[in-house]
Amino acid sequence: MQVEIADTIENLLKDKQYSSLRSALAEMNEADIAAIFSQVKESSLPLLFRLLPKDLAADTFALMDTDGQELLIRGFSDNEIKEVFDELYVDDAADIVEEMPANVVKRILKNTDSEMRQMINEILKYPEDSAGSLMTTDYISLRPEMTVSEAIKRIRRTINDAETVYTCYITDDNRKLLGYLSVKTLLLSQIDERISDIMDKTIICVHTLDDKEDVAKAMNKYDFVTMPVVDDEGRLVGIVTFDDAIDVMQDEATEDIERMAAISPTEESYFKTSDFNHAKNRILWLLILMLSAAITGTILTRYDEAFQAVKELVYFIPMLMSVGGNCGSQSSTMIIRGMSVDEIRLKDFFRVIFTEFRISIIISVVLSLVNGVRIWLMQGDLKIAVVVSLSILCIVIISQFIGCTLPMLAKKCRLDPAVMAAPLITTIVDAASILIYFNIATRFFNI
Amino acid sequence: MQVEIADTIENLLKDKQYSSLRSALAEMNEADIAAIFSQVKESSLPLLFRLLPKDLAADTFALMDTDGQELLIRGFSDNEIKEVFDELYVDDAADIVEEMPANVVKRILKNTDSEMRQMINEILKYPEDSAGSLMTTDYISLRPEMTVSEAIKRIRRTINDAETVYTCYITDDNRKLLGYLSVKTLLLSQIDERISDIMDKTIICVHTLDDKEDVAKAMNKYDFVTMPVVDDEGRLVGIVTFDDAIDVMQDEATEDIERMAAISPTEESYFKTSDFNHAKNRILWLLILMLSAAITGTILTRYDEAFQAVKELVYFIPMLMSVGGNCGSQSSTMIIRGMSVDEIRLKDFFRVIFTEFRISIIISVVLSLVNGVRIWLMQGDLKIAVVVSLSILCIVIISQFIGCTLPMLAKKCRLDPAVMAAPLITTIVDAASILIYFNIATRFFNI
Repeated sequence: MQVEIADTIENLLKDKQYSSLRSALAEMNEADIAAIFSQVKESSLPLLFRLLPKDLAADTFALMDTDGQELLIRGFSDNEIKEVFDELYVDDAADIVEEMPANVVKRILKNTDSEMRQMINEILKYPEDSAGSLMTTDYISLRPEMTVSEAIKRIRRTINDAETVYTCYITDDNRKLLGYLSVKTLLLSQIDERISDIMDKTIICVHTLDDKEDVAKAMNKYDFVTMPVVDDEGRLVGIVTFDDAIDVMQDEATEDIERMAAISPTEESYFKTSDFNHAKNRILWLLILMLSAAITGTILTRYDEAFQAVKELVYFIPMLMSVGGNCGSQSSTMIIRGMSVDEIRLKDFFRVIFTEFRISIIISVVLSLVNGVRIWLMQGDLKIAVVVSLSILCIVIISQFIGCTLPMLAKKCRLDPAVMAAPLITTIVDAASILIYFNIATRFFNI
Repeated sequence: MQVEIADTIENLLKDKQYSSLRSALAEMNEADIAAIFSQVKESSLPLLFRLLPKDLAADTFALMDTDGQELLIRGFSDNEIKEVFDELYVDDAADIVEEMPANVVKRILKNTDSEMRQMINEILKYPEDSAGSLMTTDYISLRPEMTVSEAIKRIRRTINDAETVYTCYITDDNRKLLGYLSVKTLLLSQIDERISDIMDKTIICVHTLDDKEDVAKAMNKYDFVTMPVVDDEGRLVGIVTFDDAIDVMQDEATEDIERMAAISPTEESYFKTSDFNHAKNRILWLLILMLSAAITGTILTRYDEAFQAVKELVYFIPMLMSVGGNCGSQSSTMIIRGMSVDEIRLKDFFRVIFTEFRISIIISVVLSLVNGVRIWLMQGDLKIAVVVSLSILCIVIISQFIGCTLPMLAKKCRLDPAVMAAPLITTIVDAASILIYFNIATRFFNI
């Protein structure tokens, strides 16, 4: 649908129907406009953007992709840069500045007012992935000694700058966080009540240097729309808003998924990443896994005589490796995701191992029975059937053990558990499966 | 830390220090209390719960796990049930009712007031996973002809029932949605302005039967704290709040991850699921994958003569299967996640195939060179080196092709793309890899 709208818009533009374009765009939501802008021709973008009303222009600009933003800024006059950036919320402005090349950043900072420049610089000084880099310094702070009517006056005075008015924060003379007040409570209170009497004194906050993933988790746990961020002295320096927290959670899930498939995660979207970078993100793990699989191959050379003696043994290699690999990756996936969403903690180490052990007993018995009967019936070779069944029994149990312990050990060593995921575990499990299989086979056939 | 607090609390309980317990709990946040309640002994729970102040009790109850909730309800008097449920927000109450066994549901509905009962029934009638089942009917609706001061009066009158006051919705006599008004705009407006003059008339809403995943995506796209839900006639019937949308997004990511590892997703957490159910969720896919891997084994039997002629060929089977499987799962993962977060759409079908093709060229050349040189140097057998290198070249390209097309075809057939993921693709790719390898080998060695 957006593609069609984008076409219609380009046609209107070609026919120079500026006034109908202007009124059509003014009716739309900024997220929809940004989505359409990502579809139109680059050359149409500056003209289209200039047709937007001023505040819609800034809101749309914040939601556009980095390429579109850079294209527009390069075409902007100094005055246009000032107009757009002064309308932006500080956290959005800081995010945009972070992504731009140095010469563009210079022009932006030159053309924003000193207050905005100072706030952007404040946010930029925090390390990437920290709460500080995610927060906005636009928030409403009240004093405990204010009355409700004074508070409402102050809110009306400062509201235009503030991204959110869902929660106001109460601070003392030294900006130390004392508590918070929801707009709901404020609306329910009498005009002459003191803020100190109605505010909630439970202080739940994060530190500027906390990892942004932990911030998002805490906001999810407490169902907060905004989370206050304090510095070493407990002074309020900013707030993180729920929309940024949601983005963090989405990105973390994507990273986990990519790591589990042995891909180095990037922040770029699929089509924005160059072929070369796509290849680079995948090839390192492929090389590692390829060479370690070669080791499995080398293990096979040790069982040369077994092949020669009972050539049917070869045919079951793919199946046994597949069973081991799949069981291992099922276990590791459950554990990695469980740790990501805080359902499983490191102290659960032995509990997890016992749980997986009990599950592996059930699974291994079913799989080995099904397989044993199938081989016996289809190939009529009881000896092979018993060897394969016994191997499956052991392989399932060992694979699930490896699959559940490695991610927890990785976490213990402060590595990302997802790095230890499916493919690496599969490779280890493959080698283990082959060893188990041929050990059982050589004993059984007395090779 | 929560474990320690839980211990401290149980000790206070044993020593009958009720008043210090009561004041300690009253200071805490409901999410923390619920987390602690999941750690204490079942027998302590009812007494502890009764020490909570009334509104904190309801908020905590909403956040507890289903087992704890059921335990408490079974111990509650009719009056206690009424007290807790009348304090709950409707969407939370409906969620709880949905999880309880029939006899408990009966007691709950008997003991809530008729308005609450009607609202719960309203929500329960929508299909699981629909916007209707996710929404709350607690929202603030205003009329366009009201003035700001009338609106504020109405908000103060109805606010206690409403879960959120971030956005008010404006409806006509037939409850048809006309627009919305943020509390921010309300606070900035003059007392005598008309709502119809200050409200935002852009209507972005979802339908009661829309999938809850689409609702969460739309809320993320528009950065909405609440999303209005309308029926077939465009009448406002409820709102979805951001905290529920976040949970939906988390659950969907978990489901995708589990499906990709060939596990049937459940809504239960890891430790709440019984061993038998864990095994059941994993075993179906394991059986399917095991039997399809057996087919790969059967393919091997066709190349008996090749083994006998050049026995070294066997040693490279695990490596080639690993390369194919990993390349396939990397591609499918990128595409599945890309579709989940709406970066990749079905209309990008050919664009994706060409992108993956170009990436596969780079990867296959690098992998086959590294491997060819390694085999040649280590084993001094140029012929084998060439056969393996050529095989890798073809396997990588075919695997990435299969990996990127299958998830998109699944989506085209309205299946969940994640079902087509890693393990199933791996199995198909395994068979393809073996076929490619032995076709090249037999030609090359003239077997």
